[in-house]
Amino acid sequence: MQQQLSVITLGIADLARSRRFYCDGFGWTPVFQNEDIVFYQMNGFVLGTWLASALEADMQRPLARPGAFSLAHNVATAKDVKAVLDRLSQFGGRILRAADAPPHGGMRGYVADPDDHAWEIAWNPAWPISPEGYVRFAPA
Amino acid sequence: MQQQLSVITLGIADLARSRRFYCDGFGWTPVFQNEDIVFYQMNGFVLGTWLASALEADMQRPLARPGAFSLAHNVATAKDVKAVLDRLSQFGGRILRAADAPPHGGMRGYVADPDDHAWEIAWNPAWPISPEGYVRFAPA
Repeated sequence: MQQQLSVITLGIADLARSRRFYCDGFGWTPVFQNEDIVFYQMNGFVLGTWLASALEADMQRPLARPGAFSLAHNVATAKDVKAVLDRLSQFGGRILRAADAPPHGGMRGYVADPDDHAWEIAWNPAWPISPEGYVRFAPA
Repeated sequence: MQQQLSVITLGIADLARSRRFYCDGFGWTPVFQNEDIVFYQMNGFVLGTWLASALEADMQRPLARPGAFSLAHNVATAKDVKAVLDRLSQFGGRILRAADAPPHGGMRGYVADPDDHAWEIAWNPAWPISPEGYVRFAPA
């Protein structure tokens, strides 16, 4: 099967509150929105923020937060990590871990979005990012 | 900020059990692995499966399952949905919802990976997938 993931869907409680974090905080532009869901075209896949009640109904089970996962947004320089964390915290994000250097190198911190989904903001100079935003694994 | 997500990290309990689902079930190839983490190069970003205890320590908070999110793998034909669900259920997956047609069209079902993370297997003929696996939103 193709080594491909098409969509990441995050369960959210309030569309306007979530949109503020993603559109005003990250500065991203939706590709589609209605009263239940917002889609963002990302680097090779689609990010969806969907009412958690609808996601639970679709999946036919209740869901818990914070879930055992994290999303990462890599940035171009070490000092961008703190700057992005600070900015997101002004748009409904909550800092989980301030920027510091992990044992494997680089720089990172964590911020929870308004629905408690974790974003790692990371500077990882080993992994190239193309102008289109495509990210490649590379050994450190 | 670039509309870009670099890494999705899933918290897992057992690397071998998880690898069986992703490598043998989906048929994907790791780009890196050690005793704590497996990385897969995906379509424009990296998927990591990391010991949940390590992810919790890094994020400095406990995490719950099943989390309020889903991942989707889109397939080329309607009948591939059931075939992929069946295959994944033979490699440690647990069917959450059998293949059926959602109100907005197409075909989909849900399967939990061995760590209870939900994958939607979906046929969505409106959204193009490039040969490299890059997925584009398009109106239905």
